[in-house]
Amino acid sequence: MTETTPATSVEADALRALYADWTAIMTSTPDLTTRLFRSIFDEWHQPTREPEDVTYAQETIGGVPGLWALPIGADRTQVLLYLHGGGFAVGSASSHRKLAGHVAKALGVTAFVLDYRRAPEHPHPAQVEDGVAAFVGLTERGLRPEDVTTIGDSAGGNLAVAVPLALREQGLPLPGRIVAFSPWLDMENTGESLVTNAETDALVTVPLLESMIAGVLADGAIHPRTPLANPLHADLAGLPPLYVDAGDAETLRDDAVRLAARAEAAGVDVTLSIVDDMQHVFPFLAGTAPEADDEIARVAAWYRTTMRSTR
Amino acid sequence: MTETTPATSVEADALRALYADWTAIMTSTPDLTTRLFRSIFDEWHQPTREPEDVTYAQETIGGVPGLWALPIGADRTQVLLYLHGGGFAVGSASSHRKLAGHVAKALGVTAFVLDYRRAPEHPHPAQVEDGVAAFVGLTERGLRPEDVTTIGDSAGGNLAVAVPLALREQGLPLPGRIVAFSPWLDMENTGESLVTNAETDALVTVPLLESMIAGVLADGAIHPRTPLANPLHADLAGLPPLYVDAGDAETLRDDAVRLAARAEAAGVDVTLSIVDDMQHVFPFLAGTAPEADDEIARVAAWYRTTMRSTR
Repeated sequence: MTETTPATSVEADALRALYADWTAIMTSTPDLTTRLFRSIFDEWHQPTREPEDVTYAQETIGGVPGLWALPIGADRTQVLLYLHGGGFAVGSASSHRKLAGHVAKALGVTAFVLDYRRAPEHPHPAQVEDGVAAFVGLTERGLRPEDVTTIGDSAGGNLAVAVPLALREQGLPLPGRIVAFSPWLDMENTGESLVTNAETDALVTVPLLESMIAGVLADGAIHPRTPLANPLHADLAGLPPLYVDAGDAETLRDDAVRLAARAEAAGVDVTLSIVDDMQHVFPFLAGTAPEADDEIARVAAWYRTTMRSTR
Repeated sequence: MTETTPATSVEADALRALYADWTAIMTSTPDLTTRLFRSIFDEWHQPTREPEDVTYAQETIGGVPGLWALPIGADRTQVLLYLHGGGFAVGSASSHRKLAGHVAKALGVTAFVLDYRRAPEHPHPAQVEDGVAAFVGLTERGLRPEDVTTIGDSAGGNLAVAVPLALREQGLPLPGRIVAFSPWLDMENTGESLVTNAETDALVTVPLLESMIAGVLADGAIHPRTPLANPLHADLAGLPPLYVDAGDAETLRDDAVRLAARAEAAGVDVTLSIVDDMQHVFPFLAGTAPEADDEIARVAAWYRTTMRSTR
């Protein structure tokens, strides 16, 4: 495990400001519909600068629609299966297009951003099933499993771990590596940072998490320690190399810290990056703030190390 | 003037359905804030299929931010200055990115989608000023004025005409041509189609237009026949070749028809395309419905004709 702590840029405030604006809307509109909740979260791309030299294409893989981010000159045999965040309920390929483009470009690979079925219409395990179906679909078109990386942020960081766990349960080959940006894993809200960072996190609060938990766990019908819904309670042994990050200002910081600790205890090759003062999923500041670009550069350096070990 | 009337596809319903959904939100939320209004209208890209082989880049030109759509292999000496729709108040480079990408790709040129200042914070003539500044900025970097096309939809179709009129007023060179998709011009709501198509148009109603007029004309402080705000009351003589379209189901159809008639009477080379059963700005169905692809192909054929006459 390594820990990095760069200084904070003025530009990094763009993400905090967007979160503060969403929080103001959610506070002033307590009956905000899922429909409008999705609308505002589709603005998640706004703090991300448009990545240059990347093209896009819609496709359906394994029955699941999604959007390819195709950096010019990228190695098309290497794929990031990108699982977007948004509490399993909001967010989309559209909200995460630019972020996936930045990460794919930095790594020299392609990314497929999955539009998986969302809660509450589709509770757990619909999201995991869609991730598994897309992964299998990618391998069926000739990609080597080890050349696919499951990657995601927030609830998508959970899925980036849960999808390999589901593949393992089904006796299927695993991806070559896992990347989880600010993963949200704990469906019981037990992290200490939920309290200690309540003043610094501009977006994620316990009430917000509770509403998301109600949606994805079907109003309590699904147990909050179900391993594929809450990988903090899964056996993590045998997972491929794992990169986890979080911002030190986040209420969900301890989800990242606990995932890294438990994966390391299970013998997984883990890299943990906690960056001072950063908000939830700070890589959304790609192209805007150096903290995000530095973080993505660290992921790229890590990715190259994992490539050497699997080739 | 030509008139084309293809049949209606099932896919074309995607745009009507989005408009019906927005209308349901606006009806059920009479106090919808400008903030949330902008959020839902940023979904305007959803009926548009992602155009392949197009890259994007943010830039500020003439002091105005915007987004380049750069089809691979496009002629970079030819630029569409794209002025997005949304009643001068909503819409953005983000909502129109894919549409601009499709049009640029079909024409073999590049597009710069302008994030001009929006009403009500910035009433008329802020939008026209930003369009003029970007046009001048493009020419200052070496583009020939006749190689720039002002193009827009809805309120942006108004701006696509108003910006050349403002350039003419200032004694500056004009763009090589103008394209207006479903332009909204009449600030007095006098078009007959506002009544006769009230049942078929899923989005644009007189009350909606009235609220947009209040915003852009500063609650009546600006006269609704101000020529640069309402080009139906401008002297259109001397404008470059003009392509105008609208859907035959639109309440704003008569704005397109009247613009074409008045421009033709003023000696402008006009092409008018009215397509049966189509909704407001139906080119948003690019890549999704044949009616939009056919329309964009007609624009491309027309563009090639105008190129022959200016070279």
